Amino acid sequence: MTTDEVAKNTSIIERYDISIIEPLNWWIGFKNQTLQLLVHHSNISERTPVIFHEGVSIEKVHLADSPNYLFIDLVISELTKAGKFNIIFKQDKKEDLIHTYELKSREKPSEDYIGFDSSDAIYLITPDRFANGNPNNDIIEILNEKTIDRNNNNSRHGGDILGIINHLNYIEDLGFTAIWPTPLLTNDMYQSSYHGYAITNFYQIDPRFGCLEDYKTLSLKMSEKGMKLIMDQVVNHCGLEHWWMKDLPFKNWINHQENYIKNKDNWDDSKGIITSHRRTTNQDIYASEIDKNDMSEGWFVSAMPDLNQRNPFMAKYTIQNSIWWIETANLGGIRQDTYSYPDKNFMSRWAGDIMNEYPNFSIVGEEWTNNPLLIAYWQQGNPNRDGYNSNLKSPMDFAMQEKIVSSLNQEESWDSGFIEIYKALANDFAYVNPKDIVVFPDNHDMSRIFTQLNGDVAHTKMAISYLCVLPRIPQIYYGTEILMNDFDNPGNHGLIRSDFPGGWSNDNVNAFTGKGLTDTQKDMQIYIKKLLNYRKSSKAIHKGKTIHFTPNNGIYLLFRILNNEIVIHIMNKNNTPVKLNLLRFNEIGLKGRAVKNIITNYQFFWGNNITLTQKGSTILSTKLK
Amino acid sequence: MTTDEVAKNTSIIERYDISIIEPLNWWIGFKNQTLQLLVHHSNISERTPVIFHEGVSIEKVHLADSPNYLFIDLVISELTKAGKFNIIFKQDKKEDLIHTYELKSREKPSEDYIGFDSSDAIYLITPDRFANGNPNNDIIEILNEKTIDRNNNNSRHGGDILGIINHLNYIEDLGFTAIWPTPLLTNDMYQSSYHGYAITNFYQIDPRFGCLEDYKTLSLKMSEKGMKLIMDQVVNHCGLEHWWMKDLPFKNWINHQENYIKNKDNWDDSKGIITSHRRTTNQDIYASEIDKNDMSEGWFVSAMPDLNQRNPFMAKYTIQNSIWWIETANLGGIRQDTYSYPDKNFMSRWAGDIMNEYPNFSIVGEEWTNNPLLIAYWQQGNPNRDGYNSNLKSPMDFAMQEKIVSSLNQEESWDSGFIEIYKALANDFAYVNPKDIVVFPDNHDMSRIFTQLNGDVAHTKMAISYLCVLPRIPQIYYGTEILMNDFDNPGNHGLIRSDFPGGWSNDNVNAFTGKGLTDTQKDMQIYIKKLLNYRKSSKAIHKGKTIHFTPNNGIYLLFRILNNEIVIHIMNKNNTPVKLNLLRFNEIGLKGRAVKNIITNYQFFWGNNITLTQKGSTILSTKLK
Repeated sequence: MTTDEVAKNTSIIERYDISIIEPLNWWIGFKNQTLQLLVHHSNISERTPVIFHEGVSIEKVHLADSPNYLFIDLVISELTKAGKFNIIFKQDKKEDLIHTYELKSREKPSEDYIGFDSSDAIYLITPDRFANGNPNNDIIEILNEKTIDRNNNNSRHGGDILGIINHLNYIEDLGFTAIWPTPLLTNDMYQSSYHGYAITNFYQIDPRFGCLEDYKTLSLKMSEKGMKLIMDQVVNHCGLEHWWMKDLPFKNWINHQENYIKNKDNWDDSKGIITSHRRTTNQDIYASEIDKNDMSEGWFVSAMPDLNQRNPFMAKYTIQNSIWWIETANLGGIRQDTYSYPDKNFMSRWAGDIMNEYPNFSIVGEEWTNNPLLIAYWQQGNPNRDGYNSNLKSPMDFAMQEKIVSSLNQEESWDSGFIEIYKALANDFAYVNPKDIVVFPDNHDMSRIFTQLNGDVAHTKMAISYLCVLPRIPQIYYGTEILMNDFDNPGNHGLIRSDFPGGWSNDNVNAFTGKGLTDTQKDMQIYIKKLLNYRKSSKAIHKGKTIHFTPNNGIYLLFRILNNEIVIHIMNKNNTPVKLNLLRFNEIGLKGRAVKNIITNYQFFWGNNITLTQKGSTILSTKLK
Repeated sequence: MTTDEVAKNTSIIERYDISIIEPLNWWIGFKNQTLQLLVHHSNISERTPVIFHEGVSIEKVHLADSPNYLFIDLVISELTKAGKFNIIFKQDKKEDLIHTYELKSREKPSEDYIGFDSSDAIYLITPDRFANGNPNNDIIEILNEKTIDRNNNNSRHGGDILGIINHLNYIEDLGFTAIWPTPLLTNDMYQSSYHGYAITNFYQIDPRFGCLEDYKTLSLKMSEKGMKLIMDQVVNHCGLEHWWMKDLPFKNWINHQENYIKNKDNWDDSKGIITSHRRTTNQDIYASEIDKNDMSEGWFVSAMPDLNQRNPFMAKYTIQNSIWWIETANLGGIRQDTYSYPDKNFMSRWAGDIMNEYPNFSIVGEEWTNNPLLIAYWQQGNPNRDGYNSNLKSPMDFAMQEKIVSSLNQEESWDSGFIEIYKALANDFAYVNPKDIVVFPDNHDMSRIFTQLNGDVAHTKMAISYLCVLPRIPQIYYGTEILMNDFDNPGNHGLIRSDFPGGWSNDNVNAFTGKGLTDTQKDMQIYIKKLLNYRKSSKAIHKGKTIHFTPNNGIYLLFRILNNEIVIHIMNKNNTPVKLNLLRFNEIGLKGRAVKNIITNYQFFWGNNITLTQKGSTILSTKLK
């Protein structure tokens, strides 16, 4: 059969003889016209792959260290048509193995993949703990962890993608425009698989969360609402039960591989392979080589093999996997876990390749640091002295989070309290683009904000309102709207990730409907709803100028200004009424203008003073509706 | 008389009819050929100044708001010869007033004014408290503060320039190569004049410290020893008793001038003119205008009028004053007080004009901040997003100082103790030039390091040895070598600046000779002497590569490396002997090399391990002598 004949033969018979080929499919029409297929099959290295499909050519076939792998470099020309074709694996005197592969048409142009930005508010969900939409997938017999136990914080509780889909209206009503579920890919671990960060199959939704179609449905329903789905991805490590751990393709597919192979029968954290977590070695011009390696090559925990992105095949595998998910699930952003742990040059390439393909996309990377120098370092375009450019649009603002909490917990004085936030925000001068940084009151790895603020509702509202008016992208963890907390065991991960009431059919309390919520919880729900729904259309918050005034007497004012819209954010720590002289804020030009409290709807004219009746935030706007 | 005739008339008769002309003299041969004279004399504005001196021309004469001032712009061409000439102030029907002015030849070219750098170690002295070389100048009857009382920490104690001169050998023997005395200019204040920061005459050595000749002698004797004299200058403010405060030249010569004029009879801090000290307004892109003004235009205290450097005459006055002192006293550097308080654009011009004239000079500016972002901001060449370039070679490292103290005071753990210093040093990645930053265990405004470290001698030695091997310029306060402290009232300024024992003829203890010192004090003197004398010729410390290793088990190693010289700095917090495996440091390449303890002179070969017998620093070198 000639190439022409094959090309004409469109009605191929599908066969899938090969155990694993990844990516599962690909697309025509990318800027990058290369594709590297990972092929895993017994003794596949003895075979030669052949393809007859117009515009698709095999550039190179790479053998691995294991005989059971081939890596095939394809070139997909711009003339290639979408469709299925066969990859034929030939071997003398043996029958052909055939794997039907598909190149799909893209559903929309690259430019239309719009990432999250400062006009968004992100709802962070731990899916296992949010809502159990489909009780039938709670236990999957073929997976290693087979139990479900809502009384055990380390066990699965049954939440799933359908649970999120079922409550999209709730999330939308609250004013959120984006959702970041923690990882939904298969974690076929023996225990604690619920958190999702020990991925054992990078191309599969964990069946306990649903299936690929569920994930695509979630994305579709969200995009119909104008909401963005942010996928939590992990390139640093996989789960120890990942299929390739039983037959690693290369000698250096994972870090400390030799040590692992030697000791895998009694493998644990004591084997000296755990990362030092000394992340400053990424930037430190004085860091020793051994410390850099200990950091970058060490495993996060012994249950999570550390992927070696310096292996070029691993690097390509990971980048293609990310693109596959963007394209498959029409993502509105990626949250990348443990951003500073893999090889940083690879991370720059990873983000660069994605952003090159999707110029309007967004990625937020997790670097847990309170040091603004490091936050600045990781943001794309920062003039780093070592020339490093991360290509990362959005770092995370752990520094601001810490200061918001500490300052609210402190007594007000010349050098404590609000002045700490004020000084923290002043550090924005050093950021290339402050409004692309993601800020949050807490997340799935931290004590709940209500707990961090010692159960002070006013302070909790202040923390949230402040970060929602900042030149930032706010992210709020599910349940914050009903003051979920971890008082019983502060900082306990399982407790932090408690079940959202109403997510299970027999729950006594239902936060979706309001049933059984206390007045304080309901008030908080309404507060966040009003705040975020104002924020949703507030161009002043999305991209306005920021002016703030040195805190004085326990009062701190910050303004966001764009054209005729001025948002006035007042934080007050005084428990007794205070008359605030407004003369000091004259430069804002508010005198005589009508302003409205976006929570209470109370309207008045900005005059010589206002009275703050009690501790809390007051959020005013000149945009009257 | 024609110009030619005047030019020939070299033997002029000197007359000094004018009350004040500043600068007192000037020089030929500067790059900048302009000079602005401040002339202060009763109704001088009614007169016209005339000069006949070849190469010197009056470019412009400026009237001020007060009739008693003239500001004369001169141009001094490169052909001008050195010498004296008369400035004749003419007025119809009145006799000429004549002031003989001198243009001197410069003693050495601009390039030969070599500032301090990382090869130096600076000894900081509060002159009133160091040594009383001349008891005859202790009380000067024409000055406002006429008492001397060594029992009163806020009073003058009698120390002077001659006291420093007398003990230069001591300072040199300790290994210091530069001296920074706090300000020596006249502070004709009614009280607390000893500290020197309330200058009432920018062109006069305080008579209680000596005279200009004494200062020049100090400088000369220092330069004969290869030492550098660093002058502590203050452009932000003057003392309230400055002569011009009774007749301010312009309406805006000082900040809050109108308020001061109105209230000067009952003037105090309550008049609302004190700076907010909110220094982040210098960088903060969100700072309000009112906060910026409160910071920059506020007075440091009500006894120190805040000079308005936005007045162009004040700006020139200040820059010329600095240059006058560099040239007059052959300075080896300037320490600029309260660097972040004046208008920052002026500060950039001030430093720029000096560095333009003296390309190899050094300036260190005081910005008291623990925030590395701000330290970075102030260093010349930092890629600040607002385009600001300070022209300041040396910021001060308050951030490192704080971390050295806190980490030594902390128990060692994964996230406390040495790790704090390690992480602080890792911030160097963000500095344009770390080795030009001045670091110190304490200074004249801080509790003594021995007090900050709770009287722990080993920790004090560790703090000092660490900062002496860093890529920095170390500065040590007088008396640190004998463990001077302020335990009796920690942080009390007067106590911090206690008299150096032996500086007064009848002192029972004499630290210069060792008489009466405890063994611990003597040991500390020897320790600093050995450390600094090694440092003096250690190219590895001056400009070597730095490598450090993550602290482990209470042990932290840092290496400085240049060619064959390797300096090994080990800090150990263990009180019982520890055997340190050296395998981890193999990348330094020390295996088998002979090393010598620079304190004990003990020599050995770098092998597989070393035993650290007790808590403290171990400083080893491969440069055997």
